[in-house]
Amino acid sequence: MMKRIGILGGGQLGRMLALAGLPLGLRFSAIEPADDPPVKALAEHLPYAYDDLAGLELLADNVDMVTYEFENVALATAEYLEKRVPVFPSSKALMISQERFMEKEFFSDLGIPTTEYYPIDSIDDCSNAKIVTGLPAVLKTRRFGYDGKGQVIVHSVEEIRDSFTRFNGVPLILEQKINFTRELSIIAARSRNGETAFYPLMENVHKNGILLTSRAPARHVAHEMASLAKEYAAKLLDGLDYVGVLAIEFFEVNGKLIANEFAPRVHNSGHWTIDGACTSQFENHLRAILDLPLGNTDLRSFSAMVNLIGEIPDLAPVLKIPDTHVHLYDKEPRPSRKLGHVTVCGDSPDAIDKKLEQLMELIIPVY
Amino acid sequence: MMKRIGILGGGQLGRMLALAGLPLGLRFSAIEPADDPPVKALAEHLPYAYDDLAGLELLADNVDMVTYEFENVALATAEYLEKRVPVFPSSKALMISQERFMEKEFFSDLGIPTTEYYPIDSIDDCSNAKIVTGLPAVLKTRRFGYDGKGQVIVHSVEEIRDSFTRFNGVPLILEQKINFTRELSIIAARSRNGETAFYPLMENVHKNGILLTSRAPARHVAHEMASLAKEYAAKLLDGLDYVGVLAIEFFEVNGKLIANEFAPRVHNSGHWTIDGACTSQFENHLRAILDLPLGNTDLRSFSAMVNLIGEIPDLAPVLKIPDTHVHLYDKEPRPSRKLGHVTVCGDSPDAIDKKLEQLMELIIPVY
Repeated sequence: MMKRIGILGGGQLGRMLALAGLPLGLRFSAIEPADDPPVKALAEHLPYAYDDLAGLELLADNVDMVTYEFENVALATAEYLEKRVPVFPSSKALMISQERFMEKEFFSDLGIPTTEYYPIDSIDDCSNAKIVTGLPAVLKTRRFGYDGKGQVIVHSVEEIRDSFTRFNGVPLILEQKINFTRELSIIAARSRNGETAFYPLMENVHKNGILLTSRAPARHVAHEMASLAKEYAAKLLDGLDYVGVLAIEFFEVNGKLIANEFAPRVHNSGHWTIDGACTSQFENHLRAILDLPLGNTDLRSFSAMVNLIGEIPDLAPVLKIPDTHVHLYDKEPRPSRKLGHVTVCGDSPDAIDKKLEQLMELIIPVY
Repeated sequence: MMKRIGILGGGQLGRMLALAGLPLGLRFSAIEPADDPPVKALAEHLPYAYDDLAGLELLADNVDMVTYEFENVALATAEYLEKRVPVFPSSKALMISQERFMEKEFFSDLGIPTTEYYPIDSIDDCSNAKIVTGLPAVLKTRRFGYDGKGQVIVHSVEEIRDSFTRFNGVPLILEQKINFTRELSIIAARSRNGETAFYPLMENVHKNGILLTSRAPARHVAHEMASLAKEYAAKLLDGLDYVGVLAIEFFEVNGKLIANEFAPRVHNSGHWTIDGACTSQFENHLRAILDLPLGNTDLRSFSAMVNLIGEIPDLAPVLKIPDTHVHLYDKEPRPSRKLGHVTVCGDSPDAIDKKLEQLMELIIPVY
């Protein structure tokens, strides 16, 4: 029986979900207010705002279940849909990931180490916050931040107060600014019957607040740290009674993992899994929500991924590097926009180093 | 610059070409007379007969180049399109592959061993044919045979004559019936600039004239035989000035390769490449016709593929076998119809044996 999956969001993540799901016999419908979204060649495009009840009704009437590729969907939207059709992951995961204070509290309650933090709802909170986090610190909006937007580094209580005023009094959170060695992430899946699967720790480099490269697996990871990452991911999956794929981003500080945030969806740092893992994160997300057995998360090869930001390079020299795979998202070039990614695979971390170096000479991000 | 590729045919091969090509930034239009073809979720479907000039005009006006996934397209169609847009592979490859006598002559001229054969255009040819091939022999229509259709085993000159009459005098070919150890095939690619790439020899099992399983690489292949297979494929690619992917099917007889036929397109025996090779045959076909560097044809793992014929099994137990990948074609079940395939990957030929055995307990072909 052919199933139809509804997706909230029609960007590249929805596109790659559809590419992974069509071979499983699935069809897709995506709500996406933007014209001409990346998912359009592969899914029925419903051009509605995420909070337009007409669109949500249409989606609910025509699909077997709903998932999302974009976690800034209004909570009310997910809750409305949940009354009509199964929604995976649940609105609870969405709610917690959307609100940085709740997210930090959730990490802390589960015993997952995170940076020091303090919620700021009023001018009076500003000085208390500083005592908890120290200075300088990172002041963030609690909701709807992405790719480094909605955050600022502050060096004094005055700056915190000024920013609170400038942000028009929206709820903020002050977070400890830590000097990390590097950024790591883990991607994990949990199916409806509670089966879990974990990809290895990945190593990510951001530039201008946007992910530029990921390597899998991360280099020089002690066995203990790899185990802890899985343990944290398992706690989060079970704590949320999660169904689908999620990603946790960590800072590595003195050999310890400090959770920064999680994303309740497939994640840019896992795009290498299409080429470099036995089963991609996209296929495993779909297997999880369909309650099918999860696929093997073992590596097929060492991999690295580079985002194509703002500009698409000439493909011929890129594909000339052996075992290189190009994934374009069918988007118009615009500065700082993710237009695609390239994955390089190889037999050893050294082979990946070399290929990545060659690749970075061909790819010029435009911010 | 987004390119649009025209495909003659809208079946599963077109579907898998589109799945491989969308990430390369391509779009697709397919001419396919059947309603609701497998390609429909991924390409613009042009519902025209292959010889309908209105459809061919529309295709030529809207695409950058044309390829096919179905070699029984009328030659006139390919020739008509060639006057308007680049067509890869060329009509020459199509012409030769469509006519078994020409195909055999072409193999022979290139020094590629093939079975003995003799063309039958009249009743008088029947007794001469028998002298060349011996008896029993296989009598085939020279054109439009597929999946075992259009052929019969004959045991006497009388039977040859009776069949010639029954086939209404269409051109036939009598072929030596050989006792082969097994069926093997090779898939190879050649790009517009003459670059070539070869997948390893595969081992195929047909049932009721339809491919049931392929294994890659074929077991117990002497180095010399593997080299010869590549040499034959290279000769054919160059002899045809071929652009794209093709497959040659061989019989193994006393440790020698005897070419049976070639297909000027991606091939069922290469479907495992999606999961088991660094670059799939579908991506390499597109890279070849776009004149992009060919992708690495190395194995990611040992693989086997099973066609889903006539019926789709319950997916959960299939996907429970580790490193199993399901590919459905969005077709209505019907006896003897290829509805999808399953690939199993593993670390050794023995692991593949075991998984294949498990898989064959779950898959019941319906003929």
